[in-house]
Amino acid sequence: MENGLSDDTVGNPDAEEGRVPGLGEIGLNNFAPYVMNRIMARWNANLAEDLKVREMSTIKMRALAVLHVSSSLTINELSVLAVTEQSTMSRTVDALEEQGLILRTPRQDDMRVRDVTITQEGRAVFEDVWPIMYTDLQRMFRGIGHDEQQAFLATLQKILRNIRRHEI
Amino acid sequence: MENGLSDDTVGNPDAEEGRVPGLGEIGLNNFAPYVMNRIMARWNANLAEDLKVREMSTIKMRALAVLHVSSSLTINELSVLAVTEQSTMSRTVDALEEQGLILRTPRQDDMRVRDVTITQEGRAVFEDVWPIMYTDLQRMFRGIGHDEQQAFLATLQKILRNIRRHEI
Repeated sequence: MENGLSDDTVGNPDAEEGRVPGLGEIGLNNFAPYVMNRIMARWNANLAEDLKVREMSTIKMRALAVLHVSSSLTINELSVLAVTEQSTMSRTVDALEEQGLILRTPRQDDMRVRDVTITQEGRAVFEDVWPIMYTDLQRMFRGIGHDEQQAFLATLQKILRNIRRHEI
Repeated sequence: MENGLSDDTVGNPDAEEGRVPGLGEIGLNNFAPYVMNRIMARWNANLAEDLKVREMSTIKMRALAVLHVSSSLTINELSVLAVTEQSTMSRTVDALEEQGLILRTPRQDDMRVRDVTITQEGRAVFEDVWPIMYTDLQRMFRGIGHDEQQAFLATLQKILRNIRRHEI
């Protein structure tokens, strides 16, 4: 561009000449990843507490939640979608299979791949826990209108596309 | 209210008669805490990788960041603001003090309380790392305009007020 500013700097005076504004200028509560870390630490702690009563771990619940809305997944896909390291997810899937909550079946056209699916028992366990999560969600958005929630979600989805490494 | 609906249900058909919509109806990518967990897992992993090169841990960086924008804090306040368990923060503060990056001083009017402050060396270390975080922030918001970022932050701040347990 003729004025030497890239598109990114338009409307953002701090970006002029590549100057990096300090954290003190931005302010901790205007630094989005900071606020999100605080929110998610609290969300995850609240949820872990609620799940403990049902003798359920956060990772098991995440695996069941993701499988509940998917037809079948590999362990690799499951670990990305459930935001859990693959080795941890492997152990979780072992435990869930022992409890009869999921099934692993070798794929017809490639026996090396095993597809993970949720069982009826697994669905029942997730559906028992889900209202707790839904109540927590409503508390999270208390006083925030429908349109604001939709706009917030749209921005979150853009951010996830900007930051993710896996195309799922 | 006369129609028997509370304020919360206005404009939200799913909330009528207390019906809880399923996760499948909402959709994983419209369940805000899920999307936020995915974003923050990636943000934190990227940052940890970037910091490793500087021989810095995420928790040390968080402590320095919070102290950089505060005059002084107790360990308790620091652990809330830096989203870190108090016992972990205690050990981190020990290590930072040994490195000369922070100072602990007994408070004049209450010797049982020790105030943590950042040293000039601590500020220099944080300022060295900060441009990396700022670049990551810009990548996170790539293609998202100034107004949308401001609206997103305003919603985040409301959510934090809804969910937090500590009044700081």
